[in-house]
Amino acid sequence: MRADIDVEVCEVGLRDGIQGIDQFFPTDKKMAWIAAEAAAGVGEIEVCSFVPPSVSGQFIDCEEVVANALTHDGLTVSALVPNLRGAERGFPTGLHKLNFVLSISESHNQANVRCSREESLERFRQIAELRNSTAANKKVQLGVGLATALGCTIEGQVDPGEIVRIAEKTLEYGADELSVYDTVGYANPTQVRDVFRLLRRHLGDDVILAGHFHDTRGLGLANVHAALDEGVRSFDASLAGLGGCPFAPGASGNIVMDDLVFMLEAMGLRTGVDLEKLVAVREIVASGLPNEPLLGAIAKAGVPKGFRPAVVAA
Amino acid sequence: MRADIDVEVCEVGLRDGIQGIDQFFPTDKKMAWIAAEAAAGVGEIEVCSFVPPSVSGQFIDCEEVVANALTHDGLTVSALVPNLRGAERGFPTGLHKLNFVLSISESHNQANVRCSREESLERFRQIAELRNSTAANKKVQLGVGLATALGCTIEGQVDPGEIVRIAEKTLEYGADELSVYDTVGYANPTQVRDVFRLLRRHLGDDVILAGHFHDTRGLGLANVHAALDEGVRSFDASLAGLGGCPFAPGASGNIVMDDLVFMLEAMGLRTGVDLEKLVAVREIVASGLPNEPLLGAIAKAGVPKGFRPAVVAA
Repeated sequence: MRADIDVEVCEVGLRDGIQGIDQFFPTDKKMAWIAAEAAAGVGEIEVCSFVPPSVSGQFIDCEEVVANALTHDGLTVSALVPNLRGAERGFPTGLHKLNFVLSISESHNQANVRCSREESLERFRQIAELRNSTAANKKVQLGVGLATALGCTIEGQVDPGEIVRIAEKTLEYGADELSVYDTVGYANPTQVRDVFRLLRRHLGDDVILAGHFHDTRGLGLANVHAALDEGVRSFDASLAGLGGCPFAPGASGNIVMDDLVFMLEAMGLRTGVDLEKLVAVREIVASGLPNEPLLGAIAKAGVPKGFRPAVVAA
Repeated sequence: MRADIDVEVCEVGLRDGIQGIDQFFPTDKKMAWIAAEAAAGVGEIEVCSFVPPSVSGQFIDCEEVVANALTHDGLTVSALVPNLRGAERGFPTGLHKLNFVLSISESHNQANVRCSREESLERFRQIAELRNSTAANKKVQLGVGLATALGCTIEGQVDPGEIVRIAEKTLEYGADELSVYDTVGYANPTQVRDVFRLLRRHLGDDVILAGHFHDTRGLGLANVHAALDEGVRSFDASLAGLGGCPFAPGASGNIVMDDLVFMLEAMGLRTGVDLEKLVAVREIVASGLPNEPLLGAIAKAGVPKGFRPAVVAA
């Protein structure tokens, strides 16, 4: 993480936000979105998902989008990969980070990536092997998203012991960062605390833990607040709250990036993001996806009178 | 607070929720709303505001609504009063609690109740005197709402020292409970913590402190979470998020009662409220106010699979 910020926010709208939307988000609009958010100070953007066109027509322009995103100095460019095939496409692009996602819930993993969790773990092991196979690949960070870690629409509650077990396996194989995904918006703040405490206790202090919350049941930012209390300093979010999981019925809406940045800055936590510039990026999203509802409170209500973003403590 | 719950939720939709709505909410619908929420287990309902018809046409039926609300066993019936005149109407109804509201921001107090804060304090002193004047009145609890305690659309940030000063005055005069109002939805979780800590330090452990948050900027439930951390165990909310302050431009939306109850119960904190019955009450609100948008996530998404309300720890 950069030295001049306290909390890293990662834009996932270009991946999680649009993957379930039928309407193609035009390539030039994607590039404009990335450029504008990078200019607003967002440090990391997950720009696409390396899946075949048969899975999603939204990501047929991955290589082009990644190449363009890499022109922005200082921006960490990441992408999601569901398997080795995706990683084989990802590494040569020269991006900074590949995020592999597997589910803690066996049923959700089957629905989402059509294989067992053990097969997913084996896929990740192969990806990590590929990462370590060349000097160029070794520069790429490997993130692991622990999907449905906080609940599953198919299985309901998820065994926290399974989160630990799978997290440990991925670390053993070479994960650089673990992200706890509330894929379907089931989590509550007490659970978030418990899970991050459990992971910290088992995985030690050095492992980078991130949070990925959905606002499906209104608790997204309360869950962020709970995670902050546990020392988590990296969060995914989606501009205007775009998104959801196509294989998790009713699970719509990543937490709203703009509201997240407002909350953090208001709390005195530096994100490096210019909130006004960030809110202005919504226009690009609206122009590219005219039929999608754009969510978010701060864009509607405006910042409080006298609001000042977080600054370095004197 | 009842022994079988951990957190008290107070419905303010019938006061804060409808005070800014032009359309009259029919008396029989108000009664049906109160009856259904009382049956769902909500322990306290602020059923009206004792203001003259010239201030709001929404509360011309106060006496009738209070009398009806008092027929529900176990329900704490409260009402707001802005001045002695309102209290003189309130006491004879036999309700359980009168909430007096004054603003920490001088400008907001002038806009809201057309007098200075010092005049408002004097009004409260008179109300407390009236409370202590008869045996019947002495049964009535006096709550004080510290409006704009967390920010003001006119003045911006508010001096925390003023919250303490005014809170101490009202306690000296006889307040039984203090509620910190984020009238205009400016608060962030760090600020909420700081203010409740400050009040606790100055006022001691025995003073009952409550939280009243608006979700105008999306941080309502995160602010509740922060207040819970500081030991606050009583919160106002409005079914379906109705409400706002007519004298605070852009400030719409109390936190959503249904989402609040979901969060608390999911966290293992007993509210005494049956969530399913509570959500069903939204239909009464919708039928009485067909033109008002009903907010809330849990009513839309449903509870998580396998969700269980909080129970007594074994």
